Amino acid sequence: MFTIIGERINTTLKKVQAAVAERDAAYITDDVKKQDAAGATYIDVNAGARIGHEEADMRWLIDVVQSATKLPLCLDSPDPNILEMAYGLVGSKPMINSISLEKDRFAPMMRYLAGKECRIIALCMDDSGMPKSAEDIISRARQLVAELEKAGFKRDDIFIDPLIQPMSVDIRNGSMAMDAVAGIVAEVPGVHITGGLSNISYGLPQRRIINRCFLAMMVAHGFDSAIMDPLDKDLMALTTTADMLKGNDNFCMKYIKAVRAGKVVA
Amino acid sequence: MFTIIGERINTTLKKVQAAVAERDAAYITDDVKKQDAAGATYIDVNAGARIGHEEADMRWLIDVVQSATKLPLCLDSPDPNILEMAYGLVGSKPMINSISLEKDRFAPMMRYLAGKECRIIALCMDDSGMPKSAEDIISRARQLVAELEKAGFKRDDIFIDPLIQPMSVDIRNGSMAMDAVAGIVAEVPGVHITGGLSNISYGLPQRRIINRCFLAMMVAHGFDSAIMDPLDKDLMALTTTADMLKGNDNFCMKYIKAVRAGKVVA
Repeated sequence: MFTIIGERINTTLKKVQAAVAERDAAYITDDVKKQDAAGATYIDVNAGARIGHEEADMRWLIDVVQSATKLPLCLDSPDPNILEMAYGLVGSKPMINSISLEKDRFAPMMRYLAGKECRIIALCMDDSGMPKSAEDIISRARQLVAELEKAGFKRDDIFIDPLIQPMSVDIRNGSMAMDAVAGIVAEVPGVHITGGLSNISYGLPQRRIINRCFLAMMVAHGFDSAIMDPLDKDLMALTTTADMLKGNDNFCMKYIKAVRAGKVVA
Repeated sequence: MFTIIGERINTTLKKVQAAVAERDAAYITDDVKKQDAAGATYIDVNAGARIGHEEADMRWLIDVVQSATKLPLCLDSPDPNILEMAYGLVGSKPMINSISLEKDRFAPMMRYLAGKECRIIALCMDDSGMPKSAEDIISRARQLVAELEKAGFKRDDIFIDPLIQPMSVDIRNGSMAMDAVAGIVAEVPGVHITGGLSNISYGLPQRRIINRCFLAMMVAHGFDSAIMDPLDKDLMALTTTADMLKGNDNFCMKYIKAVRAGKVVA
């Protein structure tokens, strides 16, 4: 199953930030219900943008989002204290967004994760910065999985983010990400691979076609989750289609159902 | 460079057959000029549908097509005698469509190809029928390349067609084709990989989105040519985008040029 992490409830987005500031529950409820209906698997909740308000905003958002949907949440914060509070409020096994190999983030997050019942997004980032090659990404993925498994996590609960970088910076960045995904599938079988896709098109025109095309190409190599906007119909249609073509949709039934629901239109 | 073999001049298509029967040069000329403007690399010419007329139709078509474009032709016939005649009429190095491992086709085609200056589409078909696994496709590709290289052909002139089969028949057919492409790239580096994509969606609804998505997924693995309709704007836009994302477009200039020309619209 392709795991769709709906990224819309994020206070860095102007409208969301305004809704949170005004405690406009109707706006958030409506957005979350739409993400749910569109096929999101998790609702990401990020309350980090209003400095000094993260704890109160996160608390309010979790309450509103959980009233709007039965979907599990993806708790999105770099701060283990915020995550600890958030974890105590959720009704079903959440995803945690995120851990990385950066020293000041790794140890506190590992302490926080100990004994938790959750899934984890693990970024292929370390103190040397962004990865510079597919091998780099694969070795960081291997390290993250080893540490998380040592801490008791099942591989099926780990989502590796290879960190997609723009084509406009280096035309090898697309191939680097694809080769990394193929390598992770081969060397760490069973782990999930996720990420935000839109970085790939940064600085180029007609970004949406690039994002859609790249999603299909990444799925071709084994990318099986994305942090994305479930209300982007074209991207969602591509996701359903690519997952079917990869062979993950018995009798193409999910695809056919999506077509019948008007969700896949060529 | 992604090689686009324009498939529109084929007498199995009703309008083309009518134009050929009536010697309507204007219709053919207009279609070929459009394929050329849209970015075709080769113009495929198939005159096989009107039984008993193939030689005369092929002769007429080649004359009309070559008056309409400077693009090289892809001579499409199972009959070496037709191909011999056609070869004598073309001004620039053509593509020959096609050879396969089927006994009654292989030897006559190899005799025909001897000493010719041309490129070749080589189908992964043998007397046991369609391939049944990725390994099957890869071993047939290896055999075709070995025979053609023995006959003096350069690897860069060989285009392997893995023979795409419908998802509606077996949900593993997409993965089989992708794994085959990856295997051919690894085991026979430098050979081209082409084919018609639309078989993949046979029997399913919203076929065009499946064909586009599958093209991107195949390019992700190294598919670097397609037998396709250059006038399908969405498919052409995806081709340009996927080839860029694969890293084959320096500074993304081809992509940016296509956007500026209105050929890539998200």
